[in-house]
Amino acid sequence: MAQNNPLYNFVLKISDDSLITAQRLSEWTGHGPFLEEDLALTNIALDIFGRAKALLEYAAKLEGKGRSEDDLAFFRNERQYTNALICELPKGDYAKTILRLAFINAYDFLLYSQLAKSKDETLAGIAAKSIKEITYHKRHTFSWVLRFGNGTDESKQRLSDAMNDLWRYTGELFESTQEDSDLAKENTGVDFSTLKSAWEKEINTLLQQANLSIPENTFMQTGGRKGIHTEHLGYLLSEMQALPRMLPDAKW
Amino acid sequence: MAQNNPLYNFVLKISDDSLITAQRLSEWTGHGPFLEEDLALTNIALDIFGRAKALLEYAAKLEGKGRSEDDLAFFRNERQYTNALICELPKGDYAKTILRLAFINAYDFLLYSQLAKSKDETLAGIAAKSIKEITYHKRHTFSWVLRFGNGTDESKQRLSDAMNDLWRYTGELFESTQEDSDLAKENTGVDFSTLKSAWEKEINTLLQQANLSIPENTFMQTGGRKGIHTEHLGYLLSEMQALPRMLPDAKW
Repeated sequence: MAQNNPLYNFVLKISDDSLITAQRLSEWTGHGPFLEEDLALTNIALDIFGRAKALLEYAAKLEGKGRSEDDLAFFRNERQYTNALICELPKGDYAKTILRLAFINAYDFLLYSQLAKSKDETLAGIAAKSIKEITYHKRHTFSWVLRFGNGTDESKQRLSDAMNDLWRYTGELFESTQEDSDLAKENTGVDFSTLKSAWEKEINTLLQQANLSIPENTFMQTGGRKGIHTEHLGYLLSEMQALPRMLPDAKW
Repeated sequence: MAQNNPLYNFVLKISDDSLITAQRLSEWTGHGPFLEEDLALTNIALDIFGRAKALLEYAAKLEGKGRSEDDLAFFRNERQYTNALICELPKGDYAKTILRLAFINAYDFLLYSQLAKSKDETLAGIAAKSIKEITYHKRHTFSWVLRFGNGTDESKQRLSDAMNDLWRYTGELFESTQEDSDLAKENTGVDFSTLKSAWEKEINTLLQQANLSIPENTFMQTGGRKGIHTEHLGYLLSEMQALPRMLPDAKW
């Protein structure tokens, strides 16, 4: 739910992107295609969970209602989550997981590179740490996209199916409100729409090298930033929130 | 299945303990009671997965049949796994997860401290790295056991229930074969039975501080080291092995 606090709303969007992405990714823990990759994916999920925790701590502080990062993670409902829809889609097969994460990594790299220059020191600090992690994540996912795209008939087909599923969820990442744009002007937050051309340029190069083409006439999906989600988020949240909600004073 | 290669059999036992423990622990990823603890448990699981991978790589080499660590993890069946039963029990509630891990941490600390002095350089190297990790894990789980044991009525009850469930699986950890004993004599492996008195001493102190008593007349469960498992291992393996078995040339 948007509150009358632009910076809180902004931080919550990027927190939720991280938390939901990490949660989806963590579904692979112990279920990767081989041990090495299982470890790599879990490490990536941990980095992103860590970032989500730091951002939610800051959001809770900005909110100023005495809530903690755990309250924000576990006691908001679906309509109060403002992550982009692409983060909440089911993990799918390995090609889909990797392609989705490659899209998000490229986006996060641009977002946090800009945020590292924020005059808000908390955000700048979180961003600086994140850039190092995202650089590694991006290298990992991009190299997998290239292997899939230049691999066997099956890997090519799976990657192409993933592309057809996912592309329509990429547009929403660049939606910005007037508030976000104002935050960017005062050098605190980021205007998401300004990241688009650099993202497209980088992704187009990747797609070309992976022999992938962009589906034609795609109608871009939207809603997540306003709390209007796919049916998948509800299931994810009920799994993630079950234990903390059962034990509201969870620290027994 | 025991082969005519004592060192392989020994390494496989401790690999399997690590792999199955990590797999169970990873079930908490994204489902911990709060974000901080979720991250901590996942980090612990990753350390133990990392150790399992290193040990399985070595076991594969010792076996000398051209199999990889992934082959050993994903293409052995239940009867070929030689982990102790305590590792495969369902994760249960948080108190049970923590108490079980505390038992295993205390055991692993002793085991790997001895193995770090092995004249087998590979095992000594893996063990030296592991001790540092286990020291941290043990501190984490022991402090939770103390908090549960000195906490609310509910936490005390849950911890006590966990104790009653788990104690009977601790005896098996100290079963040793003649082969293991011979490996210990030549300063390669460890005779598990020699770890028992130090383990009991440390655990007795912990239990006392946590106001826990040892269940009387416990009949110790056994079988895991010979490949005879509870019904829980089959379910765990079928989840863990599903994807790699579907894609035997998984690296597409």
